[in-house]
Amino acid sequence: MHSTDTHRSGCPINLALEVLGDRWSLLIIRDMIFAGKRHFRELLQSDEGISSNILADRLAMLVDRGMLTRAGDPGHKQKVIYSLTEKSIALVPVLVQIGVWGRAYLPASEDLTLVSIELEQGGPALWQQIMADLREAHLSR
Amino acid sequence: MHSTDTHRSGCPINLALEVLGDRWSLLIIRDMIFAGKRHFRELLQSDEGISSNILADRLAMLVDRGMLTRAGDPGHKQKVIYSLTEKSIALVPVLVQIGVWGRAYLPASEDLTLVSIELEQGGPALWQQIMADLREAHLSR
Repeated sequence: MHSTDTHRSGCPINLALEVLGDRWSLLIIRDMIFAGKRHFRELLQSDEGISSNILADRLAMLVDRGMLTRAGDPGHKQKVIYSLTEKSIALVPVLVQIGVWGRAYLPASEDLTLVSIELEQGGPALWQQIMADLREAHLSR
Repeated sequence: MHSTDTHRSGCPINLALEVLGDRWSLLIIRDMIFAGKRHFRELLQSDEGISSNILADRLAMLVDRGMLTRAGDPGHKQKVIYSLTEKSIALVPVLVQIGVWGRAYLPASEDLTLVSIELEQGGPALWQQIMADLREAHLSR
């Protein structure tokens, strides 16, 4: 039943977890989507305290997997800028649903809960708007 | 900004990843939700080839975190039956969105893609029905 030798199975959920199933990758994408972060040092300042080594490793992996692109940014003191791709922008509904679940069943902090409620209540129309704005900011080069 | 000493942050997405952010836990829950598996040996037979050791470890972890319950099953040759909880049943929308994304951007196999399309097209009404059926089968004891 294995679809290819390089994947555990062809199940869409399994394939997604092969890409995203660690405790850091989705947090990097979260910070780029919802906090507008684009540079290494900004991403290093997450509340979760990601280490410089892990961040560098995950960024390289996300670029390798087509989730991010990496380019020079001559107008910024940090020379590299990361951009989302259509593939990672399409994770907005996944992140919203994960947030809804985390808020309902885990001890989420109040400030971040408000953001999550807003995202849930906005529904698919709001998610599409967020995705359109991200495309504008990240894909139009 | 850390909400408690035991969590990296109080962000709902982070908290969810602390529980689910490995490559196996959500697959176990997937098999219980969509394939009706309840016993160790059934769960061992996933396409992804989970090892007995990892399965035992993850099942214990999921029970410990309130995602599953474990009980005797005297009517079955395998003496232990696992049940979903409200907390894990509430992951149906998360799994559907992950499946939608995996299907769109990764090399999903055709048979499983059909299931994923049906789940997406059914929308929230279908997910609620699946969740109601799961509550009936797993919580009514």
